[in-house]
Amino acid sequence: MQNQIFIFSSNTNVRVSLPAVCFVWQVAMIILFGVFVRYDKEADAHWSETKKEENITSNVENDFYYRYPSFQDVHVMIFVGFGFLMTFLKRYSFGGVGFNFLIAAFGLQWALLMQGWFHSLDPVTGYIYIGIENLINADFCVAGCLIAFGALLGKVSPVQLMVMTLFGVTLYAVEEYIILNLLHAIDAGGSMVIHIFGAYYGLTISWVLYRPNLHQSKRLHGSVYHSDVFAMIGTLFLWMYWPSFNSAICYHGDGQHRAAINTYLSLAASVLTTFAISSLSAKRGKLDMVHIQNATLAGGVAMGTAAEFMIQPYGALIVGFCCGIVSTFGYLVLTPFMEKCLKIQDTCGIHNLHAMPGVLGGVVGAITAATASNAVYSPEGLINTFDFQGNFATRSVTTQGAYQAAAMCVALIFGIGGGALVGLILRFPIWGDAEDDNCFDDEVYWELPEDEESIPPILEYNNHMVTKNPDICESNFSVDQS
Amino acid sequence: MQNQIFIFSSNTNVRVSLPAVCFVWQVAMIILFGVFVRYDKEADAHWSETKKEENITSNVENDFYYRYPSFQDVHVMIFVGFGFLMTFLKRYSFGGVGFNFLIAAFGLQWALLMQGWFHSLDPVTGYIYIGIENLINADFCVAGCLIAFGALLGKVSPVQLMVMTLFGVTLYAVEEYIILNLLHAIDAGGSMVIHIFGAYYGLTISWVLYRPNLHQSKRLHGSVYHSDVFAMIGTLFLWMYWPSFNSAICYHGDGQHRAAINTYLSLAASVLTTFAISSLSAKRGKLDMVHIQNATLAGGVAMGTAAEFMIQPYGALIVGFCCGIVSTFGYLVLTPFMEKCLKIQDTCGIHNLHAMPGVLGGVVGAITAATASNAVYSPEGLINTFDFQGNFATRSVTTQGAYQAAAMCVALIFGIGGGALVGLILRFPIWGDAEDDNCFDDEVYWELPEDEESIPPILEYNNHMVTKNPDICESNFSVDQS
Amino acid sequence: MQNQIFIFSSNTNVRVSLPAVCFVWQVAMIILFGVFVRYDKEADAHWSETKKEENITSNVENDFYYRYPSFQDVHVMIFVGFGFLMTFLKRYSFGGVGFNFLIAAFGLQWALLMQGWFHSLDPVTGYIYIGIENLINADFCVAGCLIAFGALLGKVSPVQLMVMTLFGVTLYAVEEYIILNLLHAIDAGGSMVIHIFGAYYGLTISWVLYRPNLHQSKRLHGSVYHSDVFAMIGTLFLWMYWPSFNSAICYHGDGQHRAAINTYLSLAASVLTTFAISSLSAKRGKLDMVHIQNATLAGGVAMGTAAEFMIQPYGALIVGFCCGIVSTFGYLVLTPFMEKCLKIQDTCGIHNLHAMPGVLGGVVGAITAATASNAVYSPEGLINTFDFQGNFATRSVTTQGAYQAAAMCVALIFGIGGGALVGLILRFPIWGDAEDDNCFDDEVYWELPEDEESIPPILEYNNHMVTKNPDICESNFSVDQS
Repeated sequence: MQNQIFIFSSNTNVRVSLPAVCFVWQVAMIILFGVFVRYDKEADAHWSETKKEENITSNVENDFYYRYPSFQDVHVMIFVGFGFLMTFLKRYSFGGVGFNFLIAAFGLQWALLMQGWFHSLDPVTGYIYIGIENLINADFCVAGCLIAFGALLGKVSPVQLMVMTLFGVTLYAVEEYIILNLLHAIDAGGSMVIHIFGAYYGLTISWVLYRPNLHQSKRLHGSVYHSDVFAMIGTLFLWMYWPSFNSAICYHGDGQHRAAINTYLSLAASVLTTFAISSLSAKRGKLDMVHIQNATLAGGVAMGTAAEFMIQPYGALIVGFCCGIVSTFGYLVLTPFMEKCLKIQDTCGIHNLHAMPGVLGGVVGAITAATASNAVYSPEGLINTFDFQGNFATRSVTTQGAYQAAAMCVALIFGIGGGALVGLILRFPIWGDAEDDNCFDDEVYWELPEDEESIPPILEYNNHMVTKNPDICESNFSVDQS
Repeated sequence: MQNQIFIFSSNTNVRVSLPAVCFVWQVAMIILFGVFVRYDKEADAHWSETKKEENITSNVENDFYYRYPSFQDVHVMIFVGFGFLMTFLKRYSFGGVGFNFLIAAFGLQWALLMQGWFHSLDPVTGYIYIGIENLINADFCVAGCLIAFGALLGKVSPVQLMVMTLFGVTLYAVEEYIILNLLHAIDAGGSMVIHIFGAYYGLTISWVLYRPNLHQSKRLHGSVYHSDVFAMIGTLFLWMYWPSFNSAICYHGDGQHRAAINTYLSLAASVLTTFAISSLSAKRGKLDMVHIQNATLAGGVAMGTAAEFMIQPYGALIVGFCCGIVSTFGYLVLTPFMEKCLKIQDTCGIHNLHAMPGVLGGVVGAITAATASNAVYSPEGLINTFDFQGNFATRSVTTQGAYQAAAMCVALIFGIGGGALVGLILRFPIWGDAEDDNCFDDEVYWELPEDEESIPPILEYNNHMVTKNPDICESNFSVDQS
Repeated sequence: MQNQIFIFSSNTNVRVSLPAVCFVWQVAMIILFGVFVRYDKEADAHWSETKKEENITSNVENDFYYRYPSFQDVHVMIFVGFGFLMTFLKRYSFGGVGFNFLIAAFGLQWALLMQGWFHSLDPVTGYIYIGIENLINADFCVAGCLIAFGALLGKVSPVQLMVMTLFGVTLYAVEEYIILNLLHAIDAGGSMVIHIFGAYYGLTISWVLYRPNLHQSKRLHGSVYHSDVFAMIGTLFLWMYWPSFNSAICYHGDGQHRAAINTYLSLAASVLTTFAISSLSAKRGKLDMVHIQNATLAGGVAMGTAAEFMIQPYGALIVGFCCGIVSTFGYLVLTPFMEKCLKIQDTCGIHNLHAMPGVLGGVVGAITAATASNAVYSPEGLINTFDFQGNFATRSVTTQGAYQAAAMCVALIFGIGGGALVGLILRFPIWGDAEDDNCFDDEVYWELPEDEESIPPILEYNNHMVTKNPDICESNFSVDQS
């Protein structure tokens, strides 16, 4: 064996840091859950008493039955949707789906606590009471961090991802509290809270962690045929279940119903414009899998804020129509521009799929909120939709529109500010990230199976053994012998 | 580079036609939705008023909660089920799942309009009011076109598929109106309306578009190991969610419950007979993935019409038992016969999976309807199941059986007649379809990634670089250098 | 072609036995269903009368709406979850997902009968009345056999699997009757009934069928890159839907709600400890896909018994924390030890994923049952949770704890005893199982497609034909010419 070159510098060893982080944080979760978290009244064994006290006649009124199917759809989006969408790289499929799994499983625990402290803490008992809606919100919070992961895919270590998630969830919970509670903005599907925040958080981190010599990993920075098909699993589960995502925490009845319809339509429209622009931009009209895998989802992102508004079916179609175009152009023009001129390396193109459609969604939400009327919503419908109760009973729809716009700015500020801070933390040379010539390579953090080509069975498929030309054999399989 | 041969004739360029069709049709959708489509009362913000007017005490009575889980299952069948079932070809997986995505996303919009005009148009306001049941029906309608796509897979351009879908949805809506409203036939899971129509529509188009030299693409007309595993994703999601498909629009309560049980049992039985016949027909009893991927689903197709009838559990098992046999024999005997003698090229074997089981389902439906009785159904149950109300209050079950049989003929006529018409339209040499030696090849319409074999990383898996024998290297990687 | 060696001994021919078994058993099912099985009152067309008799005001009270979403999630776990989890072997993916499909489809029919005779038989009419809960229980029963399949994967013939399933379902139904009805133990998610029984049943069979020369198939006993990604589909669907599995047959209301929350948390914790131990145990901290695919699920197994208990969120986290550690250590230490010293070959490591976490779950269940109190549960909640009604109205929680422990022993005894018996039956040399050097090979029971490497299209990707060096060509493609 001549020229043996060791690929890895020693700093990618995460044998101490990764287990340490996992153990310490999981133990911390157990302690904090022990101190703070209990079942809410609908999940507690006292529910049969609660039913009597509150004159609830049927078990079906338990929020579980209203929201559990949506919760499971959202859960699939988080783990299979985001996970498989990130398997498109030819040799980073393990990292894509595996690290997605890790940070989501950690993030949701931390999110239950952070969101609980802000939203579900009982000041009397000091407990956070959790039920099905908390689980959905935790999944939502995790989605923000997974979006950020999309920009960093293949360039950071699992330890960095855990740190990124810890801070991301924390920032998310604060930002969400400001937007939903203080500004009282509506954002059922999280165009602002989830997508704008998550995307700018990830993009800013990526900018801080800029790798000038990333081109040294260019050989791995692309897909192969079957990895693109795997990614379509992610795309389709995201696409199909997005109506559940946007309607999961809407108010019962027409709110959930309308949000599902709007999202369904918006998504359908963005498929058509994505195919159109993708074909229009290529030699001989050939379609690009990157666009189909991503830009088709932009319609769901952009319906996040206005999901339960009376935007009407044609309004939803228009939103989807625009998003498909904007997002596909982003992949064609903006991603290369950002990498070259702004020094932002965005592996999955989250700027096109989450940032821009998120902003569009925020704008649509602000405008449609400002133009809402009693005629269209009915007085009670307006109160239900915008939750004009308590301190906000007298707020006008115009004011609401202004607060929606302000919410968008809050999400943007938290994303960029938080990303800059966390990016700096992640630049410490202690986290075990790979060299520039070893990005997008599962070899760094995973035990990989022997490759299909280097094993004999592929030569045995006609019911008999084949004696190969020994010279060719030797050269083909020199890997094993070296 | 010797003997450079250009594979493509120029007519596969869809750079103008595909974007044009997508844009024009999507804009048309927006305009028509703007003129015609509004939310129905259960999805409208006036729902809180409606509840009071109609004395509805709980939000859970909103049809959304009865049907949304089934809708999502159907949605998965349309996009992942049909999409991945069609990834089995070794080099047409992008086209299988991608074009499935495109035509489904377009088709469902057009279906909402066409079905809306026939079923949900309010004559006073002139609006179509849509809710969750319309979304399910739109997905059903799209299923008909996707079945037809199965016969054409790999042989037509995306523009042709869009045209096929436009006409297919239109024909479907008319046929459905005749069958369900005029003949008042029952077809909850669409054995007739969806499967017979869709299959004969696709088969007739395929017959009109017969390619005498298709054998020139023989090298691509088959699967590889992993493409067969991808196709099993489609098979399994179709198989698992078929009970939801057949029960999705049944009447609330026992109707949905019974339809799910019947379909579950019928599907289970067809798995066993499919394995049996597949093994019986091969040397050494080896199983054929084509049969397992397809014929196992025949039990679901054949329970479409009689899904909510009191066919009893053993009746459902008998239906599944027969379907598995018939469908597998179709793959063994009929598909080669049809290709050779009838000049019908049926890529996915939809005749075996949809046409024959659909006809069987229609016959089972007619017989079981004709033999229904008050004793078995209870008087009220009979009215619920067969919807003997209004104009049809006095119809006897025997008459119902006759109308069920008539409905089957209507589906057949629309399928064959419509297919002949649309086939002729698709023969115009303007649609950008591939030559006979380029069928089943994603290269024609997709930007493909470099192939796995032609990239260096596969040689690096033992933590060190390998210096390969330069001569072998050169020959192995001559593709890139040519 | 020199040295032509026929790989298969003649006894792998299942052309007679497999179809015979499938046909005979399916016909038997039809006859037995005809004699015994009818729809239950909620699925029968008389439901509208039942509603009046029982003063049920809304269709939504039909159990279908409480349980159908959970049922579909469980169904996905059985067919896609277990099926794809077993595709990880490089050349046994067809067998993994295909035989899983076969034995599940047969097993659920036999389970409906066996469980029906024990639980749903009406002594007056002599009929078994089935509804949605029976379908869920049948899927549960099948899960037990699929766990056993995991130990046998790649080493037995499909006929053996059918026999194993027939006996497995039978034993399961008896064991379940003893545990749930006679001992009145609680086991909503089946830590004992499903996992302990299934795992020891499979392990004992594997021990009886020990293959001393299995190392001859070593070349096939591992994964390739993409087969590991396929297996992650199975892992994730199992992981995501496990809350539905454990809550599917809990009592309505807080029971289902709490079971879902507990399982969700336990699973999340086991992901973190699995990653930690996996990284800790490998050179340079590299993660092992086998651990990620399996041990992450241990938290769900171990919450099976205590799912609906008031174990509190932190309790669920502790359970998951321990399981991830125990299960991953199992893969590292126990599986090799068992193979070498105990002569138990466990292909999928079910001892680590099902047996040990199942025992842990049983112990947790016994302890938490014994320490339950009126204060924590409320008197009515205690009755609901432990079903202290009828003959068991006066049972104390301490007694309950003892019976829970006894139930664990019953599951163990049935697993080991039944496995020994069935293993002996499966040793008869009539079942068509492969030789030791042909295990883990789809070639034995499946028609395989030509391999990707042996077909020309991979050389055509640059829009032109390539003339290859004929010498190299000949040697590379000698398989086809031999």
